[in-house]
Amino acid sequence: MNIADKTIEAINKKQCPICVGLDPTIDKIPKFIVDKQVKEHCNTTKAVAESFKEFSYALLDELHHLVPVVKPNIAFWEMYGPAGVEALIETIKYAKDKGLIVIIDAKRQDIGNTSKAYAQGLIGDVPLPKDSTTNIDADWVTVGAYSGSDTINEFIDVCKSNNKGIIVLVRTSNDSAKEFQDLKSSEKELFKHVAAKVNEWGKDLIGEKGFSAVAAVVGATYPEEAAELRKLMPNTFFLVPGYGAQGGGGKDTIPNFNDEGFGAVVNSSRGIIFAYQKDDKDEKDFAISAKDAIIAMKHDILNAMKEADKLPEGWTVE
Amino acid sequence: MNIADKTIEAINKKQCPICVGLDPTIDKIPKFIVDKQVKEHCNTTKAVAESFKEFSYALLDELHHLVPVVKPNIAFWEMYGPAGVEALIETIKYAKDKGLIVIIDAKRQDIGNTSKAYAQGLIGDVPLPKDSTTNIDADWVTVGAYSGSDTINEFIDVCKSNNKGIIVLVRTSNDSAKEFQDLKSSEKELFKHVAAKVNEWGKDLIGEKGFSAVAAVVGATYPEEAAELRKLMPNTFFLVPGYGAQGGGGKDTIPNFNDEGFGAVVNSSRGIIFAYQKDDKDEKDFAISAKDAIIAMKHDILNAMKEADKLPEGWTVE
Repeated sequence: MNIADKTIEAINKKQCPICVGLDPTIDKIPKFIVDKQVKEHCNTTKAVAESFKEFSYALLDELHHLVPVVKPNIAFWEMYGPAGVEALIETIKYAKDKGLIVIIDAKRQDIGNTSKAYAQGLIGDVPLPKDSTTNIDADWVTVGAYSGSDTINEFIDVCKSNNKGIIVLVRTSNDSAKEFQDLKSSEKELFKHVAAKVNEWGKDLIGEKGFSAVAAVVGATYPEEAAELRKLMPNTFFLVPGYGAQGGGGKDTIPNFNDEGFGAVVNSSRGIIFAYQKDDKDEKDFAISAKDAIIAMKHDILNAMKEADKLPEGWTVE
Repeated sequence: MNIADKTIEAINKKQCPICVGLDPTIDKIPKFIVDKQVKEHCNTTKAVAESFKEFSYALLDELHHLVPVVKPNIAFWEMYGPAGVEALIETIKYAKDKGLIVIIDAKRQDIGNTSKAYAQGLIGDVPLPKDSTTNIDADWVTVGAYSGSDTINEFIDVCKSNNKGIIVLVRTSNDSAKEFQDLKSSEKELFKHVAAKVNEWGKDLIGEKGFSAVAAVVGATYPEEAAELRKLMPNTFFLVPGYGAQGGGGKDTIPNFNDEGFGAVVNSSRGIIFAYQKDDKDEKDFAISAKDAIIAMKHDILNAMKEADKLPEGWTVE
């Protein structure tokens, strides 16, 4: 079983192709949490980091029966230095202990021994003077490919030794993605050249269910292109950002799934974890609001899958 | 004075267009340092982090009179978690206190509020519950542009408010850089499309000496392309990796400088900080070996500048 197999198994078990982005910001997490932590740790990075942790733990307690995958974006945590990194590591451990698959959204890219250092730090083992330890220890990590194979090969080595996976930026979900990703060379857009390389990089890491440990980011905001990419990359698992806050709906995510309804996980971050702000509910109920948002998102996607005749065997739409 | 002005002023004062990469690895730093720290902190990430710090402080003590710029690559530090990040922050502060310009080599890339979080964490102010603090607080940060303006604009806002700079990956120094960066669209390679955008992004941030706070990475291993890029980007400061360990020589760096001999800084990492291994000198003299390597590198580049009639006014070749 490679990491794609494990991810698909978790998705199938929960009948839920959804990933929750754990992207806390100090201005949006419930005030009662921040106040409590400031009381204990004063106005420090530690107070923020502990707030993020408390907020995330409560979300994981409420959501882990429902969703198979979570995706902390490291940017929001590492900006708080050692305290932020410590809270992130603990939160990832907490999620893994609850049986969740963890994607660390880091979009790292470097070459040679630097790329190796990133791979070791994010999904592998980190050398100590006498042995080794782990740092972030996520299941998957997102990576950029602008510098080509010299970036990816080092990550692939660590994927092989630690049974982990990488998710390469192919088509991002934002508006200005087009500026470079749509440039055509030999009648093919840049993102399709990257897609072809992703196939090549991943060909030796294909699991039992037909998907490689080298996956791709394919934004939900470009459904026509997702359909093309699904055909061009039949063995590639897709992480699909852009649902909700960025404008993509359930229907837009459908082209990312194969005919059996597998091969993709759709991410939502702010739309889920800060749902309490939209509901105008008591901030103390933020985790319940998040759960309700997940149920609505699942309903939206599963209905769209059913309409497209892509609902996986045995799944039911509530 | 923008950050490019300050950087050029520091280069001119020291007559030295060189940047030293602080990229420590546990297998290459002197054993007497590691042994001492393991004795104090056992076989832990803290022992590694403290070893990196001791190693870097000694290098900075020896080199700060000679070189104007240092560039820690965050990968080597963050892989050791909270301890590694703490050592990095302290090392950057130590370098800045010695009057050095600090580039944090992070190659970050994300969009919208995530990009903002990276910018705040690396070169800006980080929000606390009641006010704000700084985290890495470098002068420059390297960034990737695959997702276009949505990545860069958030960084530019922080550059403006904090008088900092970004260095966009245009042409990286590695072999496989060509895989995507050389793809031609409208008869122009991808890296030249990125270059054109760098000009556009940087046009409102040009300093007194004619260079923008939006700079570019241009590898020393592709001198012909550097010559083209110098013409295409007359107001862009270049960070030039690939000297030494990656194969570029002094001559190869020359096209990056303008006719007055300014507008670029050439980086070397392993070739400087681990020079003691090549010299077969006592490992206790690692900082002196590094100093000798800097002097040799400076001699190589300044001689090449002189030959090309690009030695800045008032500079002397020893």
